[in-house]
Amino acid sequence: MAEGIGGKVKGGSNPLYSRSLLSIKELDRPKIDLILREAEAMHKIFETGRKLSLLKDKAMATLFYEPSTRTKLTFQRAMIALGGDEIGDPSMDTSSAAKGENLADTARVVSSFSDVIVLRHYDNGAAEIASRFSAVPVINAGNGSGEHPTQALLDLLTIKNEKRRIEGMKVAIVGDLRYGRAVHSLAYTLGMFDNDLVFIAPEELQLPKEICDYLELNGRNVERTGSLDNALDADVVYIPRIQKERFMDPKEYNRFLGMYRIDRNFMKRANPEIIVMSHGPRLDEISPEIDDLNNMVFFKQVKYGVAVRMAVLNMILGKRMLSK
Amino acid sequence: MAEGIGGKVKGGSNPLYSRSLLSIKELDRPKIDLILREAEAMHKIFETGRKLSLLKDKAMATLFYEPSTRTKLTFQRAMIALGGDEIGDPSMDTSSAAKGENLADTARVVSSFSDVIVLRHYDNGAAEIASRFSAVPVINAGNGSGEHPTQALLDLLTIKNEKRRIEGMKVAIVGDLRYGRAVHSLAYTLGMFDNDLVFIAPEELQLPKEICDYLELNGRNVERTGSLDNALDADVVYIPRIQKERFMDPKEYNRFLGMYRIDRNFMKRANPEIIVMSHGPRLDEISPEIDDLNNMVFFKQVKYGVAVRMAVLNMILGKRMLSK
Amino acid sequence: MAEGIGGKVKGGSNPLYSRSLLSIKELDRPKIDLILREAEAMHKIFETGRKLSLLKDKAMATLFYEPSTRTKLTFQRAMIALGGDEIGDPSMDTSSAAKGENLADTARVVSSFSDVIVLRHYDNGAAEIASRFSAVPVINAGNGSGEHPTQALLDLLTIKNEKRRIEGMKVAIVGDLRYGRAVHSLAYTLGMFDNDLVFIAPEELQLPKEICDYLELNGRNVERTGSLDNALDADVVYIPRIQKERFMDPKEYNRFLGMYRIDRNFMKRANPEIIVMSHGPRLDEISPEIDDLNNMVFFKQVKYGVAVRMAVLNMILGKRMLSK
Repeated sequence: MAEGIGGKVKGGSNPLYSRSLLSIKELDRPKIDLILREAEAMHKIFETGRKLSLLKDKAMATLFYEPSTRTKLTFQRAMIALGGDEIGDPSMDTSSAAKGENLADTARVVSSFSDVIVLRHYDNGAAEIASRFSAVPVINAGNGSGEHPTQALLDLLTIKNEKRRIEGMKVAIVGDLRYGRAVHSLAYTLGMFDNDLVFIAPEELQLPKEICDYLELNGRNVERTGSLDNALDADVVYIPRIQKERFMDPKEYNRFLGMYRIDRNFMKRANPEIIVMSHGPRLDEISPEIDDLNNMVFFKQVKYGVAVRMAVLNMILGKRMLSK
Repeated sequence: MAEGIGGKVKGGSNPLYSRSLLSIKELDRPKIDLILREAEAMHKIFETGRKLSLLKDKAMATLFYEPSTRTKLTFQRAMIALGGDEIGDPSMDTSSAAKGENLADTARVVSSFSDVIVLRHYDNGAAEIASRFSAVPVINAGNGSGEHPTQALLDLLTIKNEKRRIEGMKVAIVGDLRYGRAVHSLAYTLGMFDNDLVFIAPEELQLPKEICDYLELNGRNVERTGSLDNALDADVVYIPRIQKERFMDPKEYNRFLGMYRIDRNFMKRANPEIIVMSHGPRLDEISPEIDDLNNMVFFKQVKYGVAVRMAVLNMILGKRMLSK
Repeated sequence: MAEGIGGKVKGGSNPLYSRSLLSIKELDRPKIDLILREAEAMHKIFETGRKLSLLKDKAMATLFYEPSTRTKLTFQRAMIALGGDEIGDPSMDTSSAAKGENLADTARVVSSFSDVIVLRHYDNGAAEIASRFSAVPVINAGNGSGEHPTQALLDLLTIKNEKRRIEGMKVAIVGDLRYGRAVHSLAYTLGMFDNDLVFIAPEELQLPKEICDYLELNGRNVERTGSLDNALDADVVYIPRIQKERFMDPKEYNRFLGMYRIDRNFMKRANPEIIVMSHGPRLDEISPEIDDLNNMVFFKQVKYGVAVRMAVLNMILGKRMLSK
């Protein structure tokens, strides 16, 4: 059974090797620095358009119990770019699952003929269960309203590359901070770096208290507010869509939709160096008016996502890292 | 952003290189001749059963918002035969699309980590929109009741190979000429070659007037009629299925179903050299009685489809063409 | 058109070469011995984690009209491990099929650009029809309540490897013996080897009489009983899930669910050398209490499944076998 990530990084060691990646909380600062360094090396290779053969004998199994386009496609793309192969059942929701198989058995079975499992599941406990029963490492690609660690890493890589630094900034995160799993992973990660954090949401969708406590315990300045104007002087504004599928009550969803919106007017008043980020499909929280601004880095994020996933896959499965 | 096809073919130039293929109307006669020549070279290679490595570093993204078996499988097969890779989300209709993402964003995002997008969409304007926002070339693999240019090219390649010529013939096209996108693309293409054209359909499903006008403007003899007997002396009879999904009213659909049918009796009375073609799944418009006749080339068309798609993919993405 | 398997094995001949595999009944004892030998060679290679390139120019088309996770994934995995490629339309039930195409046409068309078709279909006659119209070999991966020959072969390989013999044993098969296609294939196969067979099921779900007759005709001791206690002294107990989708009446299904169950109590009373096998997703017919016992070989079976599918694919498509 695969273990979570625990060891310390020192010397030439690779902290992800043969390990699952379930939560960003498993990673400390030196490990994240190492992953980002490897991802930057991958990014450079990917830009050349050449395929590597680092994982040429490896097979990644993608088990997606929820729909996904960009996460699934970028994991596929990353595996191909490393020379590896993908196997996947596109209809997990109607196959074994439909025949009543539990996730523990599926993980155990699939892990007997694949080298890594990439799992997206509607249930918060899914990644933990899968990794407990899998004979190979599991990468959590989203578990219910829980975490999505490679998304947090790609957000970080985007900031690092677009701002040329990763500390000493003001980062504003806007929208559904209660249910958004990518936001939770990102907030934990940002807590490791010396940034001021502003969380902008209506009271009902604010960041869970335990994450706030964790951030303050780590010495971060944290502000919780309801007004988007608090993002005007930020270096980074992060505004994911409100995820309809996380709400029990559609009325609650509709009430929040459209409450915050980054548009030309916001950008005129904002710090000229601000960058605008998001993660999922964009609804109307970012106006298409600003799509062609250099500050709008949303469309670049997914490419950093390929690089991060290449780095993570290679660190988990490969014999050597590119960056050393 | 990728441009449509515009330049002239001369010398060693490749008119498809780095360009989108949205409509057959973008191609003039010399360009089509060139593509067919390249497709014939690909066909010969494919028949040997050997894989090429012309596109070994390239990834094709297939975005299919409508069901498809033969178009999707032949694009996959073509990309594999060229040594390239495919990435695809099999459930576009329930993924990002379901989360509310617009096609412009999806095209922009997916194009940031793939080399070409093959798009099938239920909306007539989709291919145009995708190509406007994509950073890589887009191949239109069917847009609503619009066009399906690689289908027209494979029809042409079939005629050229099975009849050993491409001009000076009588070609009859039968069935739903109003909604059928493959028929529209084929009619435009045939207009570039000196053939007599007979369009056989009930008045309500006849070819749109603007396509007729275009053909006559190009000097073609065009006949519109309701009787299948006008196809008896043709060199080619093309009879696609009536596409249920294009009709708003199921009663209208049922009225036309089974109106025309190529069977043994038709074949006995017809020109002995006639070839029978179609494109989609066959319902009852071609009787299985004639499946084993040499004239029935329907089953060969899909293999020419692989060759045409190999040619188009390689011309768009590759460094060199096979045919020169 | 591809033929069924008929020829005798002698000298260096490969009885599967260029042939379809529709039913385990096409295979006699020497052929099965040969396939198992090849599968054991494949198993050893697969355990090393290295990819072969035996099928590097070959493309397998997977046509699955019914959901499947492990069968589809293991066929994919097997093809990749042999260096080959897969093409597949993940939504066969909503694509050409939905447009009304019959299986004969689909098989004919898809076989024109692929090297082998792997078919799962809800209809018992499907594999036979597909192979009649396909230009390439067809592997039956489950046809309705009919057969699933590679499943029977992997069951056999599991027994051979886990028990170190394949004859002189008592094998108990428990559960839905009437509708279970894997059970039918397995029963036929076991009939070729000198084992005593106990079939445990309620009367309504007992093994069809013609299979019993066939087994007795082949000189096997066959017992039909309703009590699981008859499996206590067996060397192998095989207990597949009750397949809901095979029952017309849900009430009938519910009545049988949970009737037989292998749990710790059973294992305490049973032959200490007994091994526990199954095939599909496990519901509650095997208690998770016994998952970590060495006797519980259910989780190993799927890996033998990859080896068997590698052997079968390579014998059908390849130029040379590993085992000679």
